[in-house]
Amino acid sequence: MNAGNPSRAITAGIAAYAVGSRFDALPEQVRQETVRAFLNWLGCTLGGSREEASVRAAAAIAMVPMGAQARLIGHARRADMGGAAFINCLSSSALAFDDTHLATVTHPTGPVAASLLAYAETTPVSGAEFLNALALGIEIQCRMSNVLLMPPAMPNLSLYITGITGPIGAAVALGRLMGFDERRLRWTIGLAATQAAGIRATHGSMAGIVVPAFGARAGVFAAQLAASGIDCSEDALEAPRGFVDIFTSGADLGHAVEGLGTRFELLANAYKPYPAGIVIHAAIDACLEIVKQLPAGAEMGSARLSVNPLTLALTDRRHPATPFEAQISLYHWAAHVFLRREAGTAALHPAEVADPAIAALRDRITATGDDTLARDEAVAEMLLTDGTRMRAHVPHARGGVSRPMTDAELEAKFLTQALGVMPQDATAALLTALRVIPETTDIDGAIGNLLDAAGCNAGEA
Amino acid sequence: MNAGNPSRAITAGIAAYAVGSRFDALPEQVRQETVRAFLNWLGCTLGGSREEASVRAAAAIAMVPMGAQARLIGHARRADMGGAAFINCLSSSALAFDDTHLATVTHPTGPVAASLLAYAETTPVSGAEFLNALALGIEIQCRMSNVLLMPPAMPNLSLYITGITGPIGAAVALGRLMGFDERRLRWTIGLAATQAAGIRATHGSMAGIVVPAFGARAGVFAAQLAASGIDCSEDALEAPRGFVDIFTSGADLGHAVEGLGTRFELLANAYKPYPAGIVIHAAIDACLEIVKQLPAGAEMGSARLSVNPLTLALTDRRHPATPFEAQISLYHWAAHVFLRREAGTAALHPAEVADPAIAALRDRITATGDDTLARDEAVAEMLLTDGTRMRAHVPHARGGVSRPMTDAELEAKFLTQALGVMPQDATAALLTALRVIPETTDIDGAIGNLLDAAGCNAGEA
Repeated sequence: MNAGNPSRAITAGIAAYAVGSRFDALPEQVRQETVRAFLNWLGCTLGGSREEASVRAAAAIAMVPMGAQARLIGHARRADMGGAAFINCLSSSALAFDDTHLATVTHPTGPVAASLLAYAETTPVSGAEFLNALALGIEIQCRMSNVLLMPPAMPNLSLYITGITGPIGAAVALGRLMGFDERRLRWTIGLAATQAAGIRATHGSMAGIVVPAFGARAGVFAAQLAASGIDCSEDALEAPRGFVDIFTSGADLGHAVEGLGTRFELLANAYKPYPAGIVIHAAIDACLEIVKQLPAGAEMGSARLSVNPLTLALTDRRHPATPFEAQISLYHWAAHVFLRREAGTAALHPAEVADPAIAALRDRITATGDDTLARDEAVAEMLLTDGTRMRAHVPHARGGVSRPMTDAELEAKFLTQALGVMPQDATAALLTALRVIPETTDIDGAIGNLLDAAGCNAGEA
Repeated sequence: MNAGNPSRAITAGIAAYAVGSRFDALPEQVRQETVRAFLNWLGCTLGGSREEASVRAAAAIAMVPMGAQARLIGHARRADMGGAAFINCLSSSALAFDDTHLATVTHPTGPVAASLLAYAETTPVSGAEFLNALALGIEIQCRMSNVLLMPPAMPNLSLYITGITGPIGAAVALGRLMGFDERRLRWTIGLAATQAAGIRATHGSMAGIVVPAFGARAGVFAAQLAASGIDCSEDALEAPRGFVDIFTSGADLGHAVEGLGTRFELLANAYKPYPAGIVIHAAIDACLEIVKQLPAGAEMGSARLSVNPLTLALTDRRHPATPFEAQISLYHWAAHVFLRREAGTAALHPAEVADPAIAALRDRITATGDDTLARDEAVAEMLLTDGTRMRAHVPHARGGVSRPMTDAELEAKFLTQALGVMPQDATAALLTALRVIPETTDIDGAIGNLLDAAGCNAGEA
């Protein structure tokens, strides 16, 4: 360990940056992107709040006669801060519609926003303070993901990275909002780092959407313990036998701190147009391009997809048994697009997942990994039953950082999800409030009542 | 992955064993050892409940207006089940006096007993059911530690193993007590495995005693989520990119299930006579042997300790700054024994840790790792200022499985700790109740009121 090199002291470096961070000191683009991240997250949380996993988890939380610190969005229930952060993060990923830092497949906003919003119900927080902490948590979470997964690290494919780095992002953001000094922030980071957890084998079950939520809850608990004076080693990230050591080897700690405040990993975070695993998006785009050109009555004989090898490594699941497995099945999405000519939440209905026509199509699709293709790139080739061959090459998936969703597209995505659980007038008022979040003096005062309109008729026990 | 080999299906194997487990089917020795484990744990929990970390963490839990499901032992407070499991597990390790599975340095009873006892306050549980679940959780936790750390696995020294396998032990035990079927137990195990966390770099701070407590809380939450129908992949332990994959490579999964019900890893669990890191115990014994023979007025010139290399790897900390660091400082314990001629909790008083006379002695001690020495073996050599040389070789540390504490020693340890926080009559009644735990029809009915006598005058806000 090169203890003499200050760039190795990343726990202290992050804490020092956090204490000095201010929303009005962030570049304009970062401020805008933070607002967009929150808008996207809140829509996903509303849209996912009626999913079975969210309903069941809220029932688990409600088994405990908890306090009523914060709302479970869309559930007409309240819980303690950690429980609310847990449920709201869970809802936001329930439809796999949340944001993604593609380089590491981290979904950073969930653990951070859910933790901060729960806290904002217990103490008045201005929009600028809230967004500054949100930007901070997203930034640190993505950077720690880079440390573990980007070269020269030897990445561990078992890591469910949002569960691993989510506690740290949530904890440092919450600690900032709670006004911790640098020393307490270092404890907080350590208390979060030692709760970092999540295995990729949970994917394809409800547990797969619970892992980021565990991260939110762990981050909140870390800040609560540090607030009560539970201390921790002050270099838990980089210490021998610490956070980095446990999950990887050969990591470059510079990813964590170099350029903090001037170079923003948050700008590499993107919003999904489709509720599918992010690495499938380019293939979905390619399939959509082909179906747009299909002559009427055309039938698929077979199809071949070429994708980045990571896509295949993560989504090579031919016949999903559940909607959760379908979210991350490359074959299911391609079959759905070829048959239904769209790529929305209908692909995840249990009836669609079980449809024999879809299953038959999945069997006629082959997929190959091609390491000359980028992660947001794909090629689809189709042979029609009449012998016609079609081909589409998508160099950059829609919604990625090279081809981002516009504000209008993002607001449309928000409205679609919010209107599923909220009255129209409250939805419109909520969107208006979100547009001026940076000027809000009390975020819960501005949006809390409107969020209570979600789920008011949820009918849960 | 050798999916055709049934011994690989360890998640299912553990669940099947758990469902079929019954206290009266356990060998007599295992039943006795389980009672001893609980006695030792409860004494440690009482004894540790006034430690600063426990008081602070209880304050963190109390920040939340939680429910009153279960007691925080020694705190005159109640919390939700997960919070109570957290605090009671934390207290039990606060003085590093809890039990140890030496082969893996796992402290198995804490996460399991704390979770089960909290549950027993919400639903009547017989002594036999309780002890059966306790034996089950200890057994599975130690076996999963073996999977990760014993040959042929390549052990990861960053693992804080009680935090890693504790959630699994606690969850499977609690799921058994809650009457889960095999499928739900497999979910429970997976939901615990994906929360497995803990870095060794927390050692030496309060966070070091919090990690096992995180494990207890995670185990409780896993069972609560599974009870509400949150499902999980049913092979999360052994699946590719699952629990075993994330933490090690080359593991033998047979450690988890081979001989379940006939060979008991629980019998390799032992109780500490000294509140020190377990790997220091043989050295303490050797130092105690020398000081017993010291002539009056003898002064140490220098000393040399020879220990198993693991001891040195984990406790090579010459000048501890805090009691937590002192617990795991080989030099501090040797210096304390040489100067004070005893090895009790007095070694951990802040004044003792800071004493210049102790510091001076630590500087005159050298330690070397010797891989011909077993983990419970040590040699101490001392050169007195008058030139006399003394030497003690301890082949097996006191308290280890080769030289276990007697029932009388264990009860004396319990009384010392309990009397620190409870009235004498309640302490005596509690010990009497613990002796007949296997015949108890309602464990909380039998010991709950007595435990409420602990901390009734704690004076916490």
